[in-house]
Amino acid sequence: MKIALAQLNYITGDFSGNVTKIIEVVRKSRDSGAELVVFAELAITGYPPRDFLEFEDFILKSEDAVKQIAAECKGIAAIVGGPSRNLTGRGKPLFNTAWFLSDGVVKHLTHKSLLPNYDVFDEYRYFEPANEYQIITFKGVKLAVTICEDIWNTGEIPLYNRFPMDELVLQHPDLVINIAASPFNYHQALIRKQVLRENALKYKLPVVYVNHVGAQTELIFDGGSMACDDGGNVKEALAFFDEDFRVVDVDKSWTGAVPASEIVIPEKVDDIGVVHDALVLGIRDYFGKLGFNKAILGLSGGIDSAVTMVLAAEALGHENVRGILLPSEFSSGHSIDDARQLAINLGSPYDQISIAEAYKSFERSLHPFFKDLPFGLAEENLQARTRAVILMAMSNKFGYILLNTSNKSEAAVGYGTLYGDMCGGLSVLGDVYKTEVYQLAAYINREREIIPENSITKPPSAELRPGQKDSDSLPDYELLDRLLYQYIEKRKGPRELEEMGFESALVARVLRMVNTNEWKRYQTPPILRVSPKAFGMGRRMPIVGKYLG
Amino acid sequence: MKIALAQLNYITGDFSGNVTKIIEVVRKSRDSGAELVVFAELAITGYPPRDFLEFEDFILKSEDAVKQIAAECKGIAAIVGGPSRNLTGRGKPLFNTAWFLSDGVVKHLTHKSLLPNYDVFDEYRYFEPANEYQIITFKGVKLAVTICEDIWNTGEIPLYNRFPMDELVLQHPDLVINIAASPFNYHQALIRKQVLRENALKYKLPVVYVNHVGAQTELIFDGGSMACDDGGNVKEALAFFDEDFRVVDVDKSWTGAVPASEIVIPEKVDDIGVVHDALVLGIRDYFGKLGFNKAILGLSGGIDSAVTMVLAAEALGHENVRGILLPSEFSSGHSIDDARQLAINLGSPYDQISIAEAYKSFERSLHPFFKDLPFGLAEENLQARTRAVILMAMSNKFGYILLNTSNKSEAAVGYGTLYGDMCGGLSVLGDVYKTEVYQLAAYINREREIIPENSITKPPSAELRPGQKDSDSLPDYELLDRLLYQYIEKRKGPRELEEMGFESALVARVLRMVNTNEWKRYQTPPILRVSPKAFGMGRRMPIVGKYLG
Repeated sequence: MKIALAQLNYITGDFSGNVTKIIEVVRKSRDSGAELVVFAELAITGYPPRDFLEFEDFILKSEDAVKQIAAECKGIAAIVGGPSRNLTGRGKPLFNTAWFLSDGVVKHLTHKSLLPNYDVFDEYRYFEPANEYQIITFKGVKLAVTICEDIWNTGEIPLYNRFPMDELVLQHPDLVINIAASPFNYHQALIRKQVLRENALKYKLPVVYVNHVGAQTELIFDGGSMACDDGGNVKEALAFFDEDFRVVDVDKSWTGAVPASEIVIPEKVDDIGVVHDALVLGIRDYFGKLGFNKAILGLSGGIDSAVTMVLAAEALGHENVRGILLPSEFSSGHSIDDARQLAINLGSPYDQISIAEAYKSFERSLHPFFKDLPFGLAEENLQARTRAVILMAMSNKFGYILLNTSNKSEAAVGYGTLYGDMCGGLSVLGDVYKTEVYQLAAYINREREIIPENSITKPPSAELRPGQKDSDSLPDYELLDRLLYQYIEKRKGPRELEEMGFESALVARVLRMVNTNEWKRYQTPPILRVSPKAFGMGRRMPIVGKYLG
Repeated sequence: MKIALAQLNYITGDFSGNVTKIIEVVRKSRDSGAELVVFAELAITGYPPRDFLEFEDFILKSEDAVKQIAAECKGIAAIVGGPSRNLTGRGKPLFNTAWFLSDGVVKHLTHKSLLPNYDVFDEYRYFEPANEYQIITFKGVKLAVTICEDIWNTGEIPLYNRFPMDELVLQHPDLVINIAASPFNYHQALIRKQVLRENALKYKLPVVYVNHVGAQTELIFDGGSMACDDGGNVKEALAFFDEDFRVVDVDKSWTGAVPASEIVIPEKVDDIGVVHDALVLGIRDYFGKLGFNKAILGLSGGIDSAVTMVLAAEALGHENVRGILLPSEFSSGHSIDDARQLAINLGSPYDQISIAEAYKSFERSLHPFFKDLPFGLAEENLQARTRAVILMAMSNKFGYILLNTSNKSEAAVGYGTLYGDMCGGLSVLGDVYKTEVYQLAAYINREREIIPENSITKPPSAELRPGQKDSDSLPDYELLDRLLYQYIEKRKGPRELEEMGFESALVARVLRMVNTNEWKRYQTPPILRVSPKAFGMGRRMPIVGKYLG
């Protein structure tokens, strides 16, 4: 059977845009000789539609979209994801459904059974899980249609009590089709291959897999749709980070295959290049889908703002990213030089606005209260906030989105000023540890020096007081990041961290910093997610509490 | 059977504090002649523990806490809520459990079956639902132990497929015990009574119900524990918004009762006094549980900051709330007078810090870029942000928490400056529509004028440009709030709103404002929740999307 895989970039809630796109590809698939075209999970609404699913109007528009697409499915069938109503009179009001469209009408509805409700996923908030399984026979081929997580209940301790493929396989399907909304993290492409391989081998069936591509606020979908034979060998692989289309002919050569070798998932990120590509797509879609095209950011001369600016320039075009140097009395000369050199290397516009005068005027206004109290955190924050006011004024006046440049290490321990350097419409590096920011910088400079070497090699400093260095307040980043990774990504508690060799006092100090700064992270911008555990919707912590880990 | 109802205020993750509190009440219950003492759902961890439940260390500490409490349960039994491990080898790793403790040990575990996963609830993120039901026989009395939502699956379209009480009743219990974590909204006390009544009548059984009291960040638990006979008549009712303790003797007089009359739930808030009390508790616990006791806020002379200051003064003591007047060139004389008079009426400290100089210095710094472009939104925001910088500097220097004074109407339509008046550690009125703020002001002034009458009667204005009024940018609040209520609380779409009589152009304009300001609300402080649908964790919307409702 000739099957078209349609890997598209949807906009959440843009029914008219999504339907137009889908219908174009239905036609193209038919023209290419495909008998069936497969779109992603919840393609019609975009993923995740979140609480819009609670609006009757949204569901009506989605149903109408299905009808429009169905009308185009003549001489070709389509599988397309969208919500459908639960008409049983019990349970959540919707199903997460694969609509099978053929002969101009809806022929079958297959509902998702295993609803992810961990990390960034909230599907059980909206959907009732299916508990009936029915293969679809189309042109004599028996299709086991599944939705994303339905084929993911593997591993030693399965997360769900049901195994949809175990039940579908009793009906002797010829082929598994899986429509997915599987967001990127730096391991996801490998894990996806592993899951497909496990299913192919366990059920002795070829698998056709279609994913989303494109970013939806913090979630980045990397695509990576593919088709593999019953040995788990990838026969066709679609692009990463871009729309793609492929017609595959799943014939007898896809069965009786020699099994693919096992897929090994590394402990941590082992390819900074994919993180780079993901972040660029994340920025591009955040701006593009909101209808903006220009970014502004504060350039400190440090590595975080430099990497952020380069990524933004790749996403939006160097001419559309404006750097603002905001020196204070504590800024070093080399910081200004490094920041300026970066903008020159990129060919991006830049300006310099001193914060000295505004800062002094705040000092004078506050003097009746601060009197001769020693310079401290309030004054440091005051500088960061003065910068933010200027950046936001430029943003408001000229229609820029301000990019946040905080990294994950800082966000974790609260080393940043709320309403100061923590401002922005989008956090580009908030899921990238400082040590990984260095890796990104090296990757960016792999062919020529774009980020000035001095920004990379000098000791990190917030430059908010004379001679300040990050190492005055924080452990060495190499050590800090290893500890944070175990605490945040791996959810290791204090005893386990000590057993791993981290010093007890360090563990107590770092965990306290992480947990007492939840209130700051609550107010930070959305963070592009590139790891399996990012701050934001995927990590939900109490602000008020007395558990310090 | 003599049963003690223990309605306590827990701190999330404070195992040692919670256990100490629980053990004290176990002893007090025994001394009072109770045979059984009942604590709330997840009392041991506090509610909601959120992602701390994913930490092995957190579960170990919780298990240890259960053991400590069990050891005290001699001569008395206790039912106490806490997580327990799912040892079946499949499904989510935990259960949400009612631990039955007696004779110094754990005697029974009853797991929750119906896991709320809507609005502010994420229980399916952590817990596996129970699908076995077993009554507990204690001293010859058969107890149907249930956890919160387990008895809430009522109504015409039940949200869940299972009905725990239908199964438990087959075992002929004498009594229903329900331990709950049921947060306040302005209807919840009535709904709770209604649910208990429905269960009592349907199953012909008395019901003993124990809830949390106290605020956990945005969630306010109002207590309202109670016991009712098998006619649904409330026989004992515990305090609202305060810890309470009561021993009830559930004897034969609790059965064969004449049914209570039906409970009618009004469409909207009908008792502003409970909203007032909820907000005061919300502020008090946010500060107290974080270890702070002093609040600061900007006083504009308007009604929002006035109501916020009064509520904070009630929560923290008038001497612990400091008002800062931050006039600009656009501030009217009466605004300054009204703000000052409020502080004087409350006996609270206040100061005046002009923003004129700092604002002018920003203007000068930005002049090379803004040149002679007309005064606009950027300049308005600049004033609001200048105020925020001063307030945060005072907060940082002297250890105040800044209170946010935005109301729900403004938050909904994005009428506020991000990093300006949208700053703060806690949003007091973010779930209170402007028209309800007026009701609160009237309630506050019910005996004497605390809020100056002029703050209440003058037309609302942000005073960010000459002669500005809210009505220049927004529909009349009475109309706006009615529309917002239908859109936000009731999830009515554009067609439904038009059918209700709202003008098509108004609907389009307001829905567009709500949906294009999701990015601002993403970065606002936690909002004390008093309605069934507050901004924050209970309303999850995409930032990037093209659905405008």
